Amino acid sequence: MKVKLAVSIILLTICFAAFGQEKQAVTNVEKGLTKVSVMYPYAEGKTFDLEYYETKHMPMVAGFLGSNLVKYTIEKGVSSGIPNQPLPFMAIGTFYVKSLSDYQAAIGPNRDAIRADFPKYTNITPIILVSEVVR
Amino acid sequence: MKVKLAVSIILLTICFAAFGQEKQAVTNVEKGLTKVSVMYPYAEGKTFDLEYYETKHMPMVAGFLGSNLVKYTIEKGVSSGIPNQPLPFMAIGTFYVKSLSDYQAAIGPNRDAIRADFPKYTNITPIILVSEVVR
Repeated sequence: MKVKLAVSIILLTICFAAFGQEKQAVTNVEKGLTKVSVMYPYAEGKTFDLEYYETKHMPMVAGFLGSNLVKYTIEKGVSSGIPNQPLPFMAIGTFYVKSLSDYQAAIGPNRDAIRADFPKYTNITPIILVSEVVR
Repeated sequence: MKVKLAVSIILLTICFAAFGQEKQAVTNVEKGLTKVSVMYPYAEGKTFDLEYYETKHMPMVAGFLGSNLVKYTIEKGVSSGIPNQPLPFMAIGTFYVKSLSDYQAAIGPNRDAIRADFPKYTNITPIILVSEVVR
């Protein structure tokens, strides 16, 4: 019976230790990563098909990035946070990667395929910000 | 002894179930939240004190938001992702909140304090994007 009790205690300790590490990951997973944010500025007459972007375009690009990609996000512009100002961006797609040079090396040979996909969901020329997650 | 075994099994089940939920939270914690992104455009002659921003300004604003704030992030602009284009933004600070109206209600009475803090770290007028995390 003492052995069973000891085994139970060891298993529970391992389990709670793993649980604790996982909790920490929730808050710090992005810090130190490089973000590549593809930002689609709003202007009159501009269109953006969010469904195509989410189900076709972003998964295609993400597929080129392999294990360098930690995660990617999609956000839909709602409004300016400043009253009476126009919406700054219709949408932003962001890749969180470990290495910018690996990102560039992966995108390079696929640039034509990515560009050819643009007209299928938007008539906006995006701006792209490379940034470092500080916090 | 049968009771002890049963208790051990129940505890382990609860623990692994909690661990499983936590893993899911890592990938989906932001989905459905509202983002308020305060973006500082780069231009010649513009300055930005990232250390003051990270240690003083952002914690002050975050402190106004209470439990509506799920997390906030800070990123430092590195370059444009398009060759020969200028850096789009020097920095972006982002609040992930559950409710936009609660955010606005919390910021309203503190707007003067927030604005008075701007010149201590930057001479840039920010643009603010309110967006919805789709993925």
